[in-house]
Amino acid sequence: MHTLGGYGMYVNGYDSNKDDLQQRLRRIEGQVRGISRMVDEDKYCIDILTQVSAATKALETVALSLLGDHLRHCVAEASAEGGQVAAEKIREANDAIARLVRS
Amino acid sequence: MHTLGGYGMYVNGYDSNKDDLQQRLRRIEGQVRGISRMVDEDKYCIDILTQVSAATKALETVALSLLGDHLRHCVAEASAEGGQVAAEKIREANDAIARLVRS
Amino acid sequence: MHTLGGYGMYVNGYDSNKDDLQQRLRRIEGQVRGISRMVDEDKYCIDILTQVSAATKALETVALSLLGDHLRHCVAEASAEGGQVAAEKIREANDAIARLVRS
Amino acid sequence: MHTLGGYGMYVNGYDSNKDDLQQRLRRIEGQVRGISRMVDEDKYCIDILTQVSAATKALETVALSLLGDHLRHCVAEASAEGGQVAAEKIREANDAIARLVRS
Repeated sequence: MHTLGGYGMYVNGYDSNKDDLQQRLRRIEGQVRGISRMVDEDKYCIDILTQVSAATKALETVALSLLGDHLRHCVAEASAEGGQVAAEKIREANDAIARLVRS
Repeated sequence: MHTLGGYGMYVNGYDSNKDDLQQRLRRIEGQVRGISRMVDEDKYCIDILTQVSAATKALETVALSLLGDHLRHCVAEASAEGGQVAAEKIREANDAIARLVRS
Repeated sequence: MHTLGGYGMYVNGYDSNKDDLQQRLRRIEGQVRGISRMVDEDKYCIDILTQVSAATKALETVALSLLGDHLRHCVAEASAEGGQVAAEKIREANDAIARLVRS
Repeated sequence: MHTLGGYGMYVNGYDSNKDDLQQRLRRIEGQVRGISRMVDEDKYCIDILTQVSAATKALETVALSLLGDHLRHCVAEASAEGGQVAAEKIREANDAIARLVRS
């Protein structure tokens, strides 16, 4: 669950699994560095492409995890309050989903 | 806005732009039929691929429109009620988004 | 293998599995019509989205099949001839792949 | 153009723009590190998602560039030779494209 931070500001919804996210991102950073090394060592194109697809999928998993947290926390909360803020939050989430689907 | 149906059941959130959705889907059906005709007439592969990409994009637009309506109505409403139902609705929406991002 | 048509023109590379392609496309057309019916009958958004994802995936499979045929026939043949035509064919194929990856 | 390496082995097709690829990959590595920092600093979910989409798109551009080089060099060359090797190269390229389209 999201909680209120020290100064009454809402803490972001991804707090709960921040460590998990950081670990995934560190692994992706390593994957990208590995791809760079493969290019440097003239590895076979197809093998490099396999690694690029894997890193892309890993980034998508991070995105879906962030989005789930966002819907669970920020959007759910705004919806409970209703009105203009809720409408705006949902429009914003939908735009982010569109960018993901099209990327 | 979604409304209560005759028997107290929630009407689905896409009611408002049902005509728009139906029109888009009819157009996509026509695009797919057109692709079939291009194959039949031995049109150039690349030109057929261009039409397949266009139909895919059009289906994605339908999906994003349905998803936006769903977040605006079903999810927002469940969130306003909170609890287990809200959590389940959001998990369900997130799974649908994952299927879209990965398709 | 591709063959020469009656007037010395190259027959498109997807001839071999034209029936298979047509059958897939007819099935997708039916899926899109089914989605339209679901909207008409006020079916649950998430169930409709599942069908939209399935139709999108089916279109992608058609695209990958067309692309495979194209690489096997048109591109392979142009490459065997070499020169400017080959370069142009490959650039064209790559553009089509970019449209697919981004759609 | 690809060239023969010192010991008669074919140099990979991405040699020509290796510096460009390395630079793109270094930039993506920086983007991923930036996303990690945003999570650390509790930045707003939607802003993080925007950066994740940007990094995903950048990885796709790398993939399309590698694939273009591969088609231009390895596949074109195998096609010019023809036979079993060519068929295998094209099947392999098609599998890599399928992984990209579906990731």
